[in-house]
Amino acid sequence: MQTVTLIPGDGIGPEISTAVMKIFEAAKAPIRWEERNVTAIKGPGGRWMIPPDAKESMDRSKIGLKGPLKTPIAAGHPSMNLLLRKTFDLYANVRPCVSIEGYKTPYTDVNLVTIRENTEGEYSGIEHVIVDGVVQSIKLITENASRRIAEYAFEYARNNQRSSVTAVHKANIMRMSDGLFLRKCREVAENYKDVKFTEMYLDTVCLNMVQDPTQFDVLVMPNLYGDILSDLCAGLIGGLGVTPSGNIGANGVAIFESVHGTAPDIAGLDLANPTALLLSAVMMLRHMGLHDYGNKIQTACFDTIRDKKVLTKDLGGNSKCSEFTADICRHEDHSL
Amino acid sequence: MQTVTLIPGDGIGPEISTAVMKIFEAAKAPIRWEERNVTAIKGPGGRWMIPPDAKESMDRSKIGLKGPLKTPIAAGHPSMNLLLRKTFDLYANVRPCVSIEGYKTPYTDVNLVTIRENTEGEYSGIEHVIVDGVVQSIKLITENASRRIAEYAFEYARNNQRSSVTAVHKANIMRMSDGLFLRKCREVAENYKDVKFTEMYLDTVCLNMVQDPTQFDVLVMPNLYGDILSDLCAGLIGGLGVTPSGNIGANGVAIFESVHGTAPDIAGLDLANPTALLLSAVMMLRHMGLHDYGNKIQTACFDTIRDKKVLTKDLGGNSKCSEFTADICRHEDHSL
Ligand SMILES: CC(C)[C@H](C(=O)O)[C@@H](O)C(=O)O
Ligand SMILES: CC(C)[C@H](C(=O)O)[C@@H](O)C(=O)O
Repeated sequence: MQTVTLIPGDGIGPEISTAVMKIFEAAKAPIRWEERNVTAIKGPGGRWMIPPDAKESMDRSKIGLKGPLKTPIAAGHPSMNLLLRKTFDLYANVRPCVSIEGYKTPYTDVNLVTIRENTEGEYSGIEHVIVDGVVQSIKLITENASRRIAEYAFEYARNNQRSSVTAVHKANIMRMSDGLFLRKCREVAENYKDVKFTEMYLDTVCLNMVQDPTQFDVLVMPNLYGDILSDLCAGLIGGLGVTPSGNIGANGVAIFESVHGTAPDIAGLDLANPTALLLSAVMMLRHMGLHDYGNKIQTACFDTIRDKKVLTKDLGGNSKCSEFTADICRHEDHSL
Repeated sequence: MQTVTLIPGDGIGPEISTAVMKIFEAAKAPIRWEERNVTAIKGPGGRWMIPPDAKESMDRSKIGLKGPLKTPIAAGHPSMNLLLRKTFDLYANVRPCVSIEGYKTPYTDVNLVTIRENTEGEYSGIEHVIVDGVVQSIKLITENASRRIAEYAFEYARNNQRSSVTAVHKANIMRMSDGLFLRKCREVAENYKDVKFTEMYLDTVCLNMVQDPTQFDVLVMPNLYGDILSDLCAGLIGGLGVTPSGNIGANGVAIFESVHGTAPDIAGLDLANPTALLLSAVMMLRHMGLHDYGNKIQTACFDTIRDKKVLTKDLGGNSKCSEFTADICRHEDHSL
């Protein structure tokens, strides 16, 4: 049994977390859940921090699974998502976007992974008023963070039987910052001769992506570009309701999460779709080396969707979250 | 007769410019072309500038039509596209993206316009090395440029019978800079109660765009976001080969251009597709108040594409540029 810190989150978070736990139980996945709440609190010196018991659990388990968190409305209150990435130095945001058989979108055979630098760039948070009416925001790119994310991308490609890595940039415009990022990617590429390396402008990637996403494999990029491209790619395969996500740090620390919203309008009504959180949990199992359990659960989930008999509303059916969950459990049995 | 400065450009530029001139002639459009070359030269003090006779022509005519320019390879040599935008303070980049009947893409009924702030933001060109391995790029947002582009977008919506303007931003991350941009959009919106105003995060726009582009109308945004979104949207309707673009400045000054590349591989072979430059020239006619000529030429172009009989290779046919051009001229005749 390995321990995982479970952050159910807000809105539909608790129901989809329950769904995941049921499906894991039915699959006999050797996971012990430690549930924690992560509403930000003000620590000594007025700094926002995540509650000590959640921090302590994560420090021990190293692995988190997280549902959606509501956007804080209090002024000065940080985004919890950003605070979590920062607290645990989760430097790589990884989003596999794979077409789901039976769930129709304008695209088929999408099979790519966006790898986003998660700690710096346009998200540095450094901004100034220069004079009245003139504001600057600073985009910070460092050699270390660029090398680290490039290495992560190439390692990921190698370990996941992927054949190419594309660095996405605007070094024609931001010659120094994106230039540094790109240079590090090129340097790291030298050490991975088994993986093909290409570079492409962000605008060109966006254009080619909507014309033929099957040409892409692993894409690595600075923070903001990753924010954009990962959502764009999620759109190609059906949206945030079916797209998993993982935030990876050093020494095995990682938080896997669904990146959709809290859907307050349907919260508590047993109508939510747990797929994104479930597939994030599958990524988590693989990250923990539990590939067989991961594959089994993923297959059961995809079988349920392909069958089209028991689907939640957003997937085109009219079943409840609990019914969809039960059908996935049933498919797991059949796969034995 | 009104004079237009014609910058044929490099690669396929001259052939597609010839095509446009032929089609204009057949339509009897009252335009006199003044051809100019725009290879950058080094002016006094070592500053890059466009050649004086091109500048002088533009200063007189106020209106330019431009083919593709090759990316300069000399170190320190500026992008001619950026230099032109700067020289004439072309602050608004406008790209209508409209599905073309008969030219199949995964999307139908796309009908939107991206309006990109063209002078500042991430394109300020200000970058520094802070310490070894740490680089910053500065994104500059000003009240004046933000107000100006917002006003342009609302005027555009009103004058083109469009019902909504969406401001695209990441003010949740860049609170001060994108915050300023967004605030100006909101303020300007107050003066255009006849146009619906909405705001949306860039990542959300990208996701929604690939899921259902028909929900969008006019979109206004800072420079880099416009670079990305305008290419993405071009991809939805068939790519840069069929997407027109206009760069608009104050007092009627404007340069219309095809934004595809110079396609050196097919240059001079009479194989290029002149559609993007032609539709840009149609935007130009409308900008000059010559709506009837614009409509006539656009209809002839779309008729030719819908007919599917005489198409260039990239459009799915095997006709030459000159044959495609002749067919558009023929359609113009029929529309008389
Ligand atoms: C919630 C928000 C701060 C976040 C971001 O902009 O990074 C989100 O869009 C994401 O992609 O996780
Ligand atoms: C050529 C390049 C400098 C330019 C840009 O990045 O703005 C291009 O992508 C565009 O959109 O016109």
